Amino acid sequence: MVGNGPVFSDEPTRLDSLVREFCCGQSGRIVDLTDSATVTLALGADARDDCAVYDISGAMSLVVSSDYVRGPRFRLYELGLLANFDIGYYLVAANVSDIAAMGATPIGVLTVVRYPEELDDAGFREIIAGIHAAAQDFGTCVVGGDIGSAERIILSATALGSCRLGRGLTRNGAKPGDLLCVTGPCGIRGAAVAYFPRRGKDLGHISATTESRLLQSWRRPRARITEGRILSKHPYATSCQDTSDGLKSTIEQLSRSNGLGFEIFSGAVPIDSAVIEVAELLEAEPMTLTMSASPDFQLLFTLDPANLNACEREFRASDCEINVIGRATESGQPTVIVGADGIPRSLPGVPWVHQNVDISKLVSGG
Amino acid sequence: MVGNGPVFSDEPTRLDSLVREFCCGQSGRIVDLTDSATVTLALGADARDDCAVYDISGAMSLVVSSDYVRGPRFRLYELGLLANFDIGYYLVAANVSDIAAMGATPIGVLTVVRYPEELDDAGFREIIAGIHAAAQDFGTCVVGGDIGSAERIILSATALGSCRLGRGLTRNGAKPGDLLCVTGPCGIRGAAVAYFPRRGKDLGHISATTESRLLQSWRRPRARITEGRILSKHPYATSCQDTSDGLKSTIEQLSRSNGLGFEIFSGAVPIDSAVIEVAELLEAEPMTLTMSASPDFQLLFTLDPANLNACEREFRASDCEINVIGRATESGQPTVIVGADGIPRSLPGVPWVHQNVDISKLVSGG
Repeated sequence: MVGNGPVFSDEPTRLDSLVREFCCGQSGRIVDLTDSATVTLALGADARDDCAVYDISGAMSLVVSSDYVRGPRFRLYELGLLANFDIGYYLVAANVSDIAAMGATPIGVLTVVRYPEELDDAGFREIIAGIHAAAQDFGTCVVGGDIGSAERIILSATALGSCRLGRGLTRNGAKPGDLLCVTGPCGIRGAAVAYFPRRGKDLGHISATTESRLLQSWRRPRARITEGRILSKHPYATSCQDTSDGLKSTIEQLSRSNGLGFEIFSGAVPIDSAVIEVAELLEAEPMTLTMSASPDFQLLFTLDPANLNACEREFRASDCEINVIGRATESGQPTVIVGADGIPRSLPGVPWVHQNVDISKLVSGG
Repeated sequence: MVGNGPVFSDEPTRLDSLVREFCCGQSGRIVDLTDSATVTLALGADARDDCAVYDISGAMSLVVSSDYVRGPRFRLYELGLLANFDIGYYLVAANVSDIAAMGATPIGVLTVVRYPEELDDAGFREIIAGIHAAAQDFGTCVVGGDIGSAERIILSATALGSCRLGRGLTRNGAKPGDLLCVTGPCGIRGAAVAYFPRRGKDLGHISATTESRLLQSWRRPRARITEGRILSKHPYATSCQDTSDGLKSTIEQLSRSNGLGFEIFSGAVPIDSAVIEVAELLEAEPMTLTMSASPDFQLLFTLDPANLNACEREFRASDCEINVIGRATESGQPTVIVGADGIPRSLPGVPWVHQNVDISKLVSGG
């Protein structure tokens, strides 16, 4: 059997034989071009230098953010439901989502991939392949980072993006009366984390189709780059944030950073059918699960009502979804949800607190 | 004793009460200003948005790099010889060193700090304080990142820098006849890692003064920003790299990326007195330890001999050190070291291979 077992090569070998192939031909590419600025990736990862280098001329805003990925985001990986490719893909999506939330175009990602001895070359290469596939799907590339050994798999990344000078979508700028909108239903990834670890134990099964939808939300997450760019270009959004901490948390954060309350229209909040199925099993309200901790990458943003029609048209033309789910109230007002009975209630759901919250237990009405 | 024990707060609390105080007043600062470009940190970590935002106008090169810090770099921490503050400081220095190696000015750092349950608020705050102290010492600030729990301390960062358009110092561009220079002695941090774990076991003791010098090299590492800026400004250096993989590895990498050999002048390589003391204990050659794996942040660079005098003057005026240690030979020539006997030999030393090499065993002549 010699030569047929798993191969574990050292870091320089992995860099040369498993990483480099993904980085060919980066250097020299124009990675963003607007009427006001040109951004060229002068030296990419293929240049093998101390740093990646971007040549910038003109006027622009550069946005940059770092996210580490582990904890509950890995629970499904540990259960064997996500592959090495998937966690690489997820790492990039999570980081690019922050760029999207600023209304920027991703111009590069740096990834840190550390691995334990058990992860052989084939497994390592799958993570790298997932990382590069995601970068490609999001229109960008991996320009650098770090690989090497560690006690466990460690995934961390930094994403860079560019937008027109001063046009980044910040978390504040909303006025009373602005509409609160979201690019799609939330809570799906949280529902997956609530469901799979207990499936067939103290919980029954949902349909195979729904299981597949839940897993797909983790396997191929979409960062809302197109939506962010539309919101920043005109500029429509008065404030914006991604929903990676869950919908309730994100609404509360926008409320705090704008010093405003929000009135949420209960009937207008989009609820995914997979969330409804999982909520039934958990004996929880679908709205509660929709609002709870879930690293979805939807964008939550505010909009002057006068811009709604134009913005909707642009979203439709790009095949993007927009849902008006509430409106900003006066300063000092609480954030409430209003149902068919017209009575304002506090927002349901378990906001993101720290990594080890068991959402499924907390949202359960049983 | 209630209330007097260590405090362990959750992530949002640590962010609010232990991290934010270090980030005040960042937003709006001009972080680089040359005749050709202005870089303003429009939104820093104090803005608490999805990303940090830089407003850039003019023409410039942006350099960016990520480094994860653990493994042998933590051996001295595990022995209780480095404090939480020190490893935070080191994280930033290691990342800024890559910016210095490009001849750029650091304009920001993003840090990922994950911690196990054992690290209480006081310990966590020390790491953050070390991070911010280093950023300040290197003339920059921490504009973002990620904190949260993990199985062990995990430290990773990304550094950003800017320099004049096209003036980044790359690893290639050297010509035959160029001088090879280094900004100071190498091997000191490697000597510390070789010495302390075996001190008082199978190795004797060096002087307390030398022990203190070895530890100081880890506690307050200096990234060679001033040196890099001088080399890029004129531009003097024809190629440049930091010595974070050890001097031998770095010479070999510059040799490969330039397609040239180097002749190293044995008598001209600066050797630190602490390295000599540790080498004696290890029964190794001081030159071997100087050349071996050691995450020093010196700059190794090539220079047209015609620029040596001017470059030396500038280095002296800024109180910086320059050592001519060799010259580039023709393409295809091997890299050799030449001593007083005039006989070319292969470079001594153990190059960096992976994290778990025991340098002390490998360099020992005994």
